[in-house]
Amino acid sequence: MDNFQYSLLARDGKARAGLFKTPHGEIPTPVFMPVGTQATVKAVTPEQLLEIDASIILSNTYHLYLRPGDDLIHQLGGLHKFMHWERPILTDSGGFQVFSLGGLRRIDEDGVTFKSHIDGTLHRFTPEKSIAIQENLDADIIMAFDECANPSDYAYNTRSMQRTHHWAERCLAAKTRPDQALFGIVQGGIFKDLREQSATFIRSLDLPGHAIGGLSVGETKEEMLASIEAVNAILPENKPRYLMGVGTPYDLIECIRRGVDMFDCVLPTRLARHSAAQTLSGRINLMNAKYARDEHPIDDACTCYTCRYYSCAYLRHLIRAREMLGATLISIHNIHTLVNLARTLRAAILQGTFDQTAAALLESIPLSERNSA
Amino acid sequence: MDNFQYSLLARDGKARAGLFKTPHGEIPTPVFMPVGTQATVKAVTPEQLLEIDASIILSNTYHLYLRPGDDLIHQLGGLHKFMHWERPILTDSGGFQVFSLGGLRRIDEDGVTFKSHIDGTLHRFTPEKSIAIQENLDADIIMAFDECANPSDYAYNTRSMQRTHHWAERCLAAKTRPDQALFGIVQGGIFKDLREQSATFIRSLDLPGHAIGGLSVGETKEEMLASIEAVNAILPENKPRYLMGVGTPYDLIECIRRGVDMFDCVLPTRLARHSAAQTLSGRINLMNAKYARDEHPIDDACTCYTCRYYSCAYLRHLIRAREMLGATLISIHNIHTLVNLARTLRAAILQGTFDQTAAALLESIPLSERNSA
Repeated sequence: MDNFQYSLLARDGKARAGLFKTPHGEIPTPVFMPVGTQATVKAVTPEQLLEIDASIILSNTYHLYLRPGDDLIHQLGGLHKFMHWERPILTDSGGFQVFSLGGLRRIDEDGVTFKSHIDGTLHRFTPEKSIAIQENLDADIIMAFDECANPSDYAYNTRSMQRTHHWAERCLAAKTRPDQALFGIVQGGIFKDLREQSATFIRSLDLPGHAIGGLSVGETKEEMLASIEAVNAILPENKPRYLMGVGTPYDLIECIRRGVDMFDCVLPTRLARHSAAQTLSGRINLMNAKYARDEHPIDDACTCYTCRYYSCAYLRHLIRAREMLGATLISIHNIHTLVNLARTLRAAILQGTFDQTAAALLESIPLSERNSA
Repeated sequence: MDNFQYSLLARDGKARAGLFKTPHGEIPTPVFMPVGTQATVKAVTPEQLLEIDASIILSNTYHLYLRPGDDLIHQLGGLHKFMHWERPILTDSGGFQVFSLGGLRRIDEDGVTFKSHIDGTLHRFTPEKSIAIQENLDADIIMAFDECANPSDYAYNTRSMQRTHHWAERCLAAKTRPDQALFGIVQGGIFKDLREQSATFIRSLDLPGHAIGGLSVGETKEEMLASIEAVNAILPENKPRYLMGVGTPYDLIECIRRGVDMFDCVLPTRLARHSAAQTLSGRINLMNAKYARDEHPIDDACTCYTCRYYSCAYLRHLIRAREMLGATLISIHNIHTLVNLARTLRAAILQGTFDQTAAALLESIPLSERNSA
């Protein structure tokens, strides 16, 4: 695994600052990864992501398998070349989407049969198939195929977790490319004993990185944070820890505090397409009439491209006029907010000032954005 | 008029290469101006336009007056600041939109009463009102308020042209800002005598630039080119000539050949939003299945951002997946095609090789794109 190397540079309490080396470049952690579901971070160009200094993006195996097809992407030279993104990419396993996008799906010990949300055709994912697709897609970090279950059903989570463990072993066995790092995924719902069991098992596979799955899917914030604490007490210090699908400012702060290194979330771009700007002082609905003549940017203190050059009045005009540039500019701001928050917290960890920095940041986050995603 | 200065640098036949100085920078002519109707060139950022090296853009008075309002744009520092575009801007007078967008409108000698396409409210434009709005908007080049009539009704065009002439005088009288250049508009439909009468009158106003209006609205290509020849035989050599609303590759070549300097058209961005890429060898529908695995860019010889980094297969994927980036990337290519064509023809004029360059370019343009817009 010389292609991948995690260096733990500093700890501040349980918070960690590190550097994860991959074949497409180094990822300073903690890090927020923008999501490019269909081989594009919605409404944003790769150059705009570079300006934000996003160091890694995520793309979705389920979507790319269905359209345009992983064989096509492979034939065209892989995802980096296909979408013109030269920095690291992480692909998920397809599991989460198959289990959460609804429609008919039938799970068995060997894999999952499901219907395409695009045209209703039947497809089947197994651990081996997920790895084969991810090898075609050519990401730097690939994920083990797992089941994301309802987090509050103990009996089901027990069975599901065991299946996820078997699948992780099969993924590891199926994997052929040394230039891809396979991350295992810890499951177990909201149950401490299951989470500990799962972390212990996944750790035993000696993979180059670990993920915590099945959270931010309906459990309370306290349950989420308790699960993270239980898992991180077991996961080794010398490998990165990725909390899947999580990404509000509050979540980043509290989960980094508990030793998480990597995050992804569609929220920044989804909010942007619904006229909402994410700031560290809360979300702003730019359609609000009070912004009609507001010559200030979304956030006076923000250094992103959008805040450097555009007023709230202009952004509101673009939204009302249904101009695509509105989604682009707000997406840039929202992604920057989270990428930059992770960067700020990393600097604080390196300086040993995480608690003060986190406390100052938390003060401005409204209560409504602390309790729910 | 020290703020504006047109220098005729070279002639090759009737084709002209020039430089038009404005308070926001120099415009090398011939030039294609991308259209930013609602204070944004659809789906494209100002930086992307700078990369194409667009030297001027157009925005629409009618749309901006209705939304967000010219008073708001004035209060926020004008259009350049509002939309973050520091190079020259041209605004039309609102006349064309009022006459062409349909809905109820009533014209009289003093002006036009019309209904907003957004909310049906009643509004009234007069020459004085159009100038006041355009002064609020803060463009460098502003247009006289004119009527764009059905080009084939002689009697109506006679009356309409006279009204347009009176309105041009009123616009000139109403204008107060020395840092804005008012262009007069020649009308007269497809009728040579009216076009000559109109060109003679508009020339007599001694404005810093002239436009040819009322073409590319249903007449034949021969009628359009004959009208341009008639008008350009009368317009003075020492001022720029702007052919309004025209912009296919064929039109640019044939109208530059006849002495036109400036063009605008919504076609590049409109085509892009409908999956069509404009090349100098014709339009390409990127939804076509034959591009599914095409690893080539839209045009191997094109130097635009899109063609440097993206394959037809990727663009087709974005379109099929309804990803906004598709419209952005194809718009960049289409705008580049026309901006660069004008640049290429300018270089040929400066070298005295316009005819050969034009002949070589025309060879590859399919017949279907020569006879209609």
